[in-house]
Amino acid sequence: MGSSFGRLFCVTTFGESHGGAVGVVVDGCPPRLPLSVDEIQRDLDRRRPGQSAITTPRDEPDRAEILSGVFESLTLGSPIAIMVRNTDARPAAYADFKDTFRPSHADYTYEAKYGIRNWQGGGRASARETIGRVAAGAIARTLLRVSAHIEVLAYVRRVHTLTAAVDPSLVTLAEVESNIVRCPDAVAAEQMIARIEEARRAGDSLGGVVECVCRNVPAGLGEPVFDKLEADLARGMMSLPASKGFEIGSGFAGTALTGIEHNDPFTTDAAGRVRTASNRSGGIQGGISNGEDIVFRVAFKPTATISQPQQTVNRSGQAVTLQARGRHDPCVLPRAVPVVEAMACLVLADHLLRQRGQCG
Amino acid sequence: MGSSFGRLFCVTTFGESHGGAVGVVVDGCPPRLPLSVDEIQRDLDRRRPGQSAITTPRDEPDRAEILSGVFESLTLGSPIAIMVRNTDARPAAYADFKDTFRPSHADYTYEAKYGIRNWQGGGRASARETIGRVAAGAIARTLLRVSAHIEVLAYVRRVHTLTAAVDPSLVTLAEVESNIVRCPDAVAAEQMIARIEEARRAGDSLGGVVECVCRNVPAGLGEPVFDKLEADLARGMMSLPASKGFEIGSGFAGTALTGIEHNDPFTTDAAGRVRTASNRSGGIQGGISNGEDIVFRVAFKPTATISQPQQTVNRSGQAVTLQARGRHDPCVLPRAVPVVEAMACLVLADHLLRQRGQCG
Amino acid sequence: MGSSFGRLFCVTTFGESHGGAVGVVVDGCPPRLPLSVDEIQRDLDRRRPGQSAITTPRDEPDRAEILSGVFESLTLGSPIAIMVRNTDARPAAYADFKDTFRPSHADYTYEAKYGIRNWQGGGRASARETIGRVAAGAIARTLLRVSAHIEVLAYVRRVHTLTAAVDPSLVTLAEVESNIVRCPDAVAAEQMIARIEEARRAGDSLGGVVECVCRNVPAGLGEPVFDKLEADLARGMMSLPASKGFEIGSGFAGTALTGIEHNDPFTTDAAGRVRTASNRSGGIQGGISNGEDIVFRVAFKPTATISQPQQTVNRSGQAVTLQARGRHDPCVLPRAVPVVEAMACLVLADHLLRQRGQCG
Amino acid sequence: MGSSFGRLFCVTTFGESHGGAVGVVVDGCPPRLPLSVDEIQRDLDRRRPGQSAITTPRDEPDRAEILSGVFESLTLGSPIAIMVRNTDARPAAYADFKDTFRPSHADYTYEAKYGIRNWQGGGRASARETIGRVAAGAIARTLLRVSAHIEVLAYVRRVHTLTAAVDPSLVTLAEVESNIVRCPDAVAAEQMIARIEEARRAGDSLGGVVECVCRNVPAGLGEPVFDKLEADLARGMMSLPASKGFEIGSGFAGTALTGIEHNDPFTTDAAGRVRTASNRSGGIQGGISNGEDIVFRVAFKPTATISQPQQTVNRSGQAVTLQARGRHDPCVLPRAVPVVEAMACLVLADHLLRQRGQCG
Repeated sequence: MGSSFGRLFCVTTFGESHGGAVGVVVDGCPPRLPLSVDEIQRDLDRRRPGQSAITTPRDEPDRAEILSGVFESLTLGSPIAIMVRNTDARPAAYADFKDTFRPSHADYTYEAKYGIRNWQGGGRASARETIGRVAAGAIARTLLRVSAHIEVLAYVRRVHTLTAAVDPSLVTLAEVESNIVRCPDAVAAEQMIARIEEARRAGDSLGGVVECVCRNVPAGLGEPVFDKLEADLARGMMSLPASKGFEIGSGFAGTALTGIEHNDPFTTDAAGRVRTASNRSGGIQGGISNGEDIVFRVAFKPTATISQPQQTVNRSGQAVTLQARGRHDPCVLPRAVPVVEAMACLVLADHLLRQRGQCG
Repeated sequence: MGSSFGRLFCVTTFGESHGGAVGVVVDGCPPRLPLSVDEIQRDLDRRRPGQSAITTPRDEPDRAEILSGVFESLTLGSPIAIMVRNTDARPAAYADFKDTFRPSHADYTYEAKYGIRNWQGGGRASARETIGRVAAGAIARTLLRVSAHIEVLAYVRRVHTLTAAVDPSLVTLAEVESNIVRCPDAVAAEQMIARIEEARRAGDSLGGVVECVCRNVPAGLGEPVFDKLEADLARGMMSLPASKGFEIGSGFAGTALTGIEHNDPFTTDAAGRVRTASNRSGGIQGGISNGEDIVFRVAFKPTATISQPQQTVNRSGQAVTLQARGRHDPCVLPRAVPVVEAMACLVLADHLLRQRGQCG
Repeated sequence: MGSSFGRLFCVTTFGESHGGAVGVVVDGCPPRLPLSVDEIQRDLDRRRPGQSAITTPRDEPDRAEILSGVFESLTLGSPIAIMVRNTDARPAAYADFKDTFRPSHADYTYEAKYGIRNWQGGGRASARETIGRVAAGAIARTLLRVSAHIEVLAYVRRVHTLTAAVDPSLVTLAEVESNIVRCPDAVAAEQMIARIEEARRAGDSLGGVVECVCRNVPAGLGEPVFDKLEADLARGMMSLPASKGFEIGSGFAGTALTGIEHNDPFTTDAAGRVRTASNRSGGIQGGISNGEDIVFRVAFKPTATISQPQQTVNRSGQAVTLQARGRHDPCVLPRAVPVVEAMACLVLADHLLRQRGQCG
Repeated sequence: MGSSFGRLFCVTTFGESHGGAVGVVVDGCPPRLPLSVDEIQRDLDRRRPGQSAITTPRDEPDRAEILSGVFESLTLGSPIAIMVRNTDARPAAYADFKDTFRPSHADYTYEAKYGIRNWQGGGRASARETIGRVAAGAIARTLLRVSAHIEVLAYVRRVHTLTAAVDPSLVTLAEVESNIVRCPDAVAAEQMIARIEEARRAGDSLGGVVECVCRNVPAGLGEPVFDKLEADLARGMMSLPASKGFEIGSGFAGTALTGIEHNDPFTTDAAGRVRTASNRSGGIQGGISNGEDIVFRVAFKPTATISQPQQTVNRSGQAVTLQARGRHDPCVLPRAVPVVEAMACLVLADHLLRQRGQCG
């Protein structure tokens, strides 16, 4: 349960990290949208393991196949199913984890919930589950661009204690993709890469913060109460593996301001459009987009898989020492960037259709 | 749209701040649960305006009426509808806002979305909407207590720059309710109250952080992917008026730790139960509760309503100066405490029933 | 659970037959729709008990109160809550049923499901539950008329063995409302009324068939698979108390035709619009409206409440003889007519918004 | 949109008749349920084309592949994705239909809805879409059997004007499968087969009625209002291709009875269990199962594809004569039997979990 997301633009992911395949079904996509497997592959390639020196050496091409819903490079309006075969499974590497709970992984909670788990990998808790999200997100991204020129761009804002200087309103995809850590601040990026490589050598891991900006979002998206736009963004981001926090606009730091300091004064721009002079609201007010850039941040904890011995227990409750041997990312941040973008696209696409449905 | 929350324990709120009534329908509540209007009223009284010197002077008794779903003090399993009449409406006080957008309020976005709004108050964006949540939360709280001895407790952790020292595993309701700011650290509470009164005198407002702890949550609640327990908590909290951020366990601060420092080692307690030696996970791993205390924090911005003149525009796009005259809270935090608890109860109640449904 | 209907135009009903109130929350209604309580009351008056000699003498005015979502006679886009107080409760009349299961009522199944029931009436199984549906249906009807000139009209097609001759494409509301049995065939109507009065005198009851026609439905409403338009209509109709069957277009009788006889040839009308020469499809093909009149029929069993003694058992499993004393309709058909219309309006309104959302 | 079904046991189908694949994702299946691809294949084989002389000669093996959610022949509790490749596509056979609307098919309505369609077959309106339903239904069937010994069995009750004599309470699977028309009345079956072959030779087609019985359903499944058990069954059945009617228990014929004749007297059986002496209710009262056999019927129209020339129009609105050349079933009934069973299993499985979730 809980593998679906969205009310009108509705995605359902499936697949464990090891076994047949992972994938997604996108139901409710508008018809006649141009779509090729290349657009999907482009985002999958940004997410895939083995893409650089600071990601996991697990090397899978992650080639997407569109099984349905597209005809002559146009969407049909029917469900779009996309599948990626699992190819690089090495169950032997996980044999140690069959009866042992890896600290801060989901091994124990899956057992507690289901009384069974596929120990030959991370199961649904593996980052491989995000393949379906990224594939669906690529479709949502196309819908947003074609329908409303909306642009969604994420980047690494912080790794461990290193914070980048980035202006969300100006940052470009080229800047983000100019280095393997996906941080548009070139100086900080270099330090981050060094810090990550240092952690890897130490058998340790690092976390950080991804920031995301959504531009050209028309005013009016989002619902007043439970489905506030920031609530759905928060749900989407906090549903990502390893995320521990979400904030929008001024976020936690904004609590140190007073109301006089924090309020965004309204003004009008040259075109007579209502704007805000500042953007501490982060582009959303009362749960509804106000036409300004939507800016939010997501905290990712340091990767739980490390190469140092750790104390834990096995299924019988006996204390054991665990020495990880699986391949892993010393820092999940660079590969989290396209995943954050994908989830943001899914949220916005759903609300775009909902707004059209209710308010015409 | 977007006024419903929960898949099995499903609540739907209704009502604007001014006009007939606000309320909620709770569908899917288990039958034969003891329920009286007093339990609902108790939480509503903690939420109601006018309860202390540091809340809004808008004085409404907010008496709940149960319209259906309860028979001889037991739930029937059918929808429980609860209504609270609006009594203290003063539309004249809002006449100035009919054509003027209050900064950092939802006036403009409601107009942009719907092309209409009830200007005689905050409409659905008013904190009055949370009455329905609190009433439903009281039912969920009873369900959690009766079914699984689960206890949910929130408190003010920070106001402006003042941070309290609180141990989430030990804090009690009596400590929280021992002062009007609902901060269990008596020393910090006194400072917070002074700071809030100072802000009020200055016509200004303050924000802060509410922390919430959920105890005795059995391992196994929450779904692996989109409906991770922390994702639903995040959605619930980010759907509250004025919230700007959510974090669980180590949260944003945890990104400054390395994996070795951050991982929670597994161990067993005297009863042979699997436990974690630390709780940086915040009681949830892989989206599923692990039996430890669930601990999360919510950032609330300073109240948007202030008594100082502000620059804004009216519906014609002309620049105007706005002088707020409505009654308001100088700091929303004390009244946000029961609302945070209510949303947490709603999330847990839904997942408790979902777990029972799928896994028996 | 199960008290909500619709994905975008979403209604949630509440209330038992006895106790505080019955009502409905309509979430997702488009904004700026003209709406007054009079439009709602008009349909409620067609549904209310005591309206004629052949309906139950239970006499309740069923006055609707709009609690939210409407401002200056326009919908706000926020939830519209409507409440009708229960006034004519006579628990004493039901005292006999406290421990005894009335045959073909829901007494036993409610007990089996919930382990509790409000024995002071039919609970949620009472026809009073349909008040919420009719109130919401009146809003949906307005939306359909204003947005697309869609017209929904039902009438009694059969009572017991008496079948009326009606042309669905020509029948008018005036004809339907010209007699108390709501059958537009005046000759058949007279016979039906006599037959119903005869049944009442005998302490017996009758069933029959309601037919419904939906005109001006644009081609394109409905979804290809599970949410076919006829599937949602069927669900809506089979969710009505006492309904036992649903058929669309040629229905069960169509199974006696061959494909050559049954297929509807396509043609074009004077305006160049694609039409079908016949309408055995009933206005829906492949789950999607084709622009022709949607015509369906609903079978209602004879009212379960009768005044003759019946064999049954009590909660202890002992055989007892039951003598009904409650007030009831000898034939539910006349009052079912506005309820069938309401459900049809709810289905069409939801699909109208869904179509706009997905396909623009 | 509309490709999902069920609230807790939730299935999502995908795939067009031509193109990559068809399939289904089952989310919410309880963990640790024994499941092999053989069980799924068994039902698919009963549904597949080319299985007998009276079904379409389109010959596809329809081999199922489980992509996820199963580990060592046990369900994991995570989504179970199942895929069947399309192999026997012959787009050329459909070239004539590219611009021409086949009468009583969904060609026109798909165009009207989406402005595009995959003309190389029936798209989502093809009976191939039901592969996903049957695969998911096989899983639901296992769940029902393992959890509650529930048995679901359908059979052909009528073809054209030929009606079989069947006692729903006694009929067996062996009887149903003893002939190619799946009618347990051997005499009627022979006549039906002859009638179908006659229709095929005449280039014509036939419809009929499938009856379904669900045994050992515990009392208490189903929800009181919109999600009545018969409402969800009706929705499921009316969502099947070519279905035109649904009735439960006494159905349409029951409207010719009076209340005295129709009511089912309660009694107790030898075990002291509450039973009904007759079963005109069809096993459901007030939307909730009462422990008796659930018996319902579904009307299927004669197959729309026929081999005789038909009048129709093309996309330009010009009148054209259509001569069908695709391969098709002269009578859909025999292959509809496992599909009706599958949908019934899906409805019951969902309500079984829902009941467990809400009422424990």
